[in-house]
Amino acid sequence: MAKKVTPTETERCIESMIAVFQRYAGREITNSPNTLSKTEFLSFMHTELASFSQNQDPGVLDRMMKKLDLNCDGQLDFQEFLNLIGGLAQACHAAFTTQQPSKKI
Amino acid sequence: MAKKVTPTETERCIESMIAVFQRYAGREITNSPNTLSKTEFLSFMHTELASFSQNQDPGVLDRMMKKLDLNCDGQLDFQEFLNLIGGLAQACHAAFTTQQPSKKI
Repeated sequence: MAKKVTPTETERCIESMIAVFQRYAGREITNSPNTLSKTEFLSFMHTELASFSQNQDPGVLDRMMKKLDLNCDGQLDFQEFLNLIGGLAQACHAAFTTQQPSKKI
Repeated sequence: MAKKVTPTETERCIESMIAVFQRYAGREITNSPNTLSKTEFLSFMHTELASFSQNQDPGVLDRMMKKLDLNCDGQLDFQEFLNLIGGLAQACHAAFTTQQPSKKI
């Protein structure tokens, strides 16, 4: 019997990003299952990133969608979605490193 | 008392990426705690992504480090690290969507 390998934290994280994207991209029956429509993007933001989106001006999410949609097709593909996650992670990391003293733990 | 909010899958994923980066960036006492040295990068790859790195030619990780190090300072900062994670996620997602029939679940 094949030995079951427990995924590492990084592997779980990669799996999560794919699973979350597929979950929201697969919501609308009329839209491609491999891209996020505007409605699917808003659903993702209001559910997965509610603590961020609930304090934003209503136009902010519209502008975010337009900025993330690099090929201007009105959809977010997986790479465009990763740019969003990466941008948020970068902002959180910058806030974290500003708060922490610059020394080895 | 403040209500404890359970993080969403996306929030946990962002937290994990920051935590993993900080864990490996903080390994070498002689190196900045906010960047991965070559040794710290190899430690990360051999531990967190062993299933990927163990089957690679020894020169592959050297070339990956050079390709990821966009500013050529011999270190990987958090953005350069995110490019690695994003690239791997993109490759996994591409393999996943190739295997799956293109239909709504």
